[in-house]
Amino acid sequence: MINKKFNFNINSRDLFSLKVPATAANLGSGFDTLGMAFNLYNIFNIKKILRPGEFKCVTSGEGTEELSDVKDNMLITSYLKACSEWNVKDALGFELESCNAVPFCRGLGSSSTAVVAGVLFANLINKLNISEPELLRMMTLIEGHPDNVAPCFVGGMVASCWDPDAKTLKYVKLPALPDDLYVIAAVPDFKVQTEEARKILPSSVPFKDAVFNVSHAALLCAAWATGRWDLLKTGMDDKLHQAYRAKLFPGGEKILENIKNYKDCLAVAISGSGPTMIAIVKGKAGDLASEMCRIFTAGGVSSHFFILNCAPDGVIVEINN
Amino acid sequence: MINKKFNFNINSRDLFSLKVPATAANLGSGFDTLGMAFNLYNIFNIKKILRPGEFKCVTSGEGTEELSDVKDNMLITSYLKACSEWNVKDALGFELESCNAVPFCRGLGSSSTAVVAGVLFANLINKLNISEPELLRMMTLIEGHPDNVAPCFVGGMVASCWDPDAKTLKYVKLPALPDDLYVIAAVPDFKVQTEEARKILPSSVPFKDAVFNVSHAALLCAAWATGRWDLLKTGMDDKLHQAYRAKLFPGGEKILENIKNYKDCLAVAISGSGPTMIAIVKGKAGDLASEMCRIFTAGGVSSHFFILNCAPDGVIVEINN
Repeated sequence: MINKKFNFNINSRDLFSLKVPATAANLGSGFDTLGMAFNLYNIFNIKKILRPGEFKCVTSGEGTEELSDVKDNMLITSYLKACSEWNVKDALGFELESCNAVPFCRGLGSSSTAVVAGVLFANLINKLNISEPELLRMMTLIEGHPDNVAPCFVGGMVASCWDPDAKTLKYVKLPALPDDLYVIAAVPDFKVQTEEARKILPSSVPFKDAVFNVSHAALLCAAWATGRWDLLKTGMDDKLHQAYRAKLFPGGEKILENIKNYKDCLAVAISGSGPTMIAIVKGKAGDLASEMCRIFTAGGVSSHFFILNCAPDGVIVEINN
Repeated sequence: MINKKFNFNINSRDLFSLKVPATAANLGSGFDTLGMAFNLYNIFNIKKILRPGEFKCVTSGEGTEELSDVKDNMLITSYLKACSEWNVKDALGFELESCNAVPFCRGLGSSSTAVVAGVLFANLINKLNISEPELLRMMTLIEGHPDNVAPCFVGGMVASCWDPDAKTLKYVKLPALPDDLYVIAAVPDFKVQTEEARKILPSSVPFKDAVFNVSHAALLCAAWATGRWDLLKTGMDDKLHQAYRAKLFPGGEKILENIKNYKDCLAVAISGSGPTMIAIVKGKAGDLASEMCRIFTAGGVSSHFFILNCAPDGVIVEINN
């Protein structure tokens, strides 16, 4: 049984699987604001409910080495954090099987898949009947920013505003890209430390650069909402973050400058804080994907690519009963 | 004959009227970006075609005193500038009748009505068959920024990006507000000098304030495009310009702070660079409009108000033949 709803009438023997999408955040002009979901998934499967405090996990695929220790597993820490925030006493434990296709620590929202799944499991396993806005608020609270968890949870392209003081979230879901537009994600074998990616950003910016990003992010959202795909390239233009962060990995600056000039390329951006680069392409995407990887190779780093669609739905819940 | 098209098969004896809407630019988070058109119009009527270089004008209504001199009339200077940019030799003169309902120099785009009309008359009277994108580009070039002339020309709510170096314009028109949402424009008897309004803005801003406006402008456009009127208030929130400019006229800060908390108020913003304040309201607007004027009165300045709709169309052309 497949269901998008996040609350069920649960039998004690019901077990769940979650299929949780990769996401690209910080899209172009939309720093800390715009993110989209892809049809590339981590699958989290609850094999058995265990007593409170008891957790087991088996991981395969991306990040297997890094995720072997239960106490560092971000899905489990998110699960426990959500239970604690919602005042669940004696939250049940579980045996988890993770099958990960989302590259680990590459800017494609792998950590958000764990946060989203942990929060949803907290709701489902402990039968809390939490509303969807509160589920997403909790995901944002745990992740610290909304631009990955929001599209991960609801799908499509999402514009979101998080108020870290009031801890409130406002967001709008825009539709997914049409099926004939593809997203290339070119993933170098290189890690960017999130901390370093934050530190390299300036503490203040020229007023005109702030206005530049305001107008381009507004244009991007208006264009996306009305299907004006011809305006994505202009709308993605950014002066706040990409020029700084593209320096942190080999090939970043060159891809940002060169790839958008190719005929079928509608836009190019750093995914999250990198090092994955995405390009939105009309029609055949293979040649451009190869070109992106060639630039990484020329920078001395190997890479691989995915050709994806923007996923119209976010998390998919399956009940295994 | 009424027609929205801006090119006609013109007989030499054809004369034109233009009905050109008021606009509010710099909307909330969308500094230099977002503007909307209202159903409040200046009407410009060509009474007679004259020989090149010969111009007459008669003005009634708003700005009558300021607009009496032909050589300072912004419609005529815009007409001549557009003719010059398009290499029209011996541009015809005309006798113009202006009937102005848009408050003069109050932040409601009165100068943009003159620029838009001047550019359109240049095209129509001299039979140039200029394309609509080039017409709007010329209007922006003459006005210096797109956020009044774009909604003035095309109507509705417009997100626009002007590249002042390349002199190119990209924009998206979003639909007008639904008919049950009204826009109050409260207009104090006070002038804000555009120069002073520009100078009071900082030359640089904290990175987090830039990101604040990026995310709120993105949310605002996404919400507007999808009819999420409940999110206008959050989406309009701004840290780049209004706090500075609201100090330039009595009552500005108080209206900005207080009015948005009223039950039926969906958003409040400075119109343009002020001093007019607008509020978007659901249902009965009279009480809130009176309250806005009371705040101006308490600040020592008289005022009047309009209760308007967002105009779905921009300029309306009529042929008088």
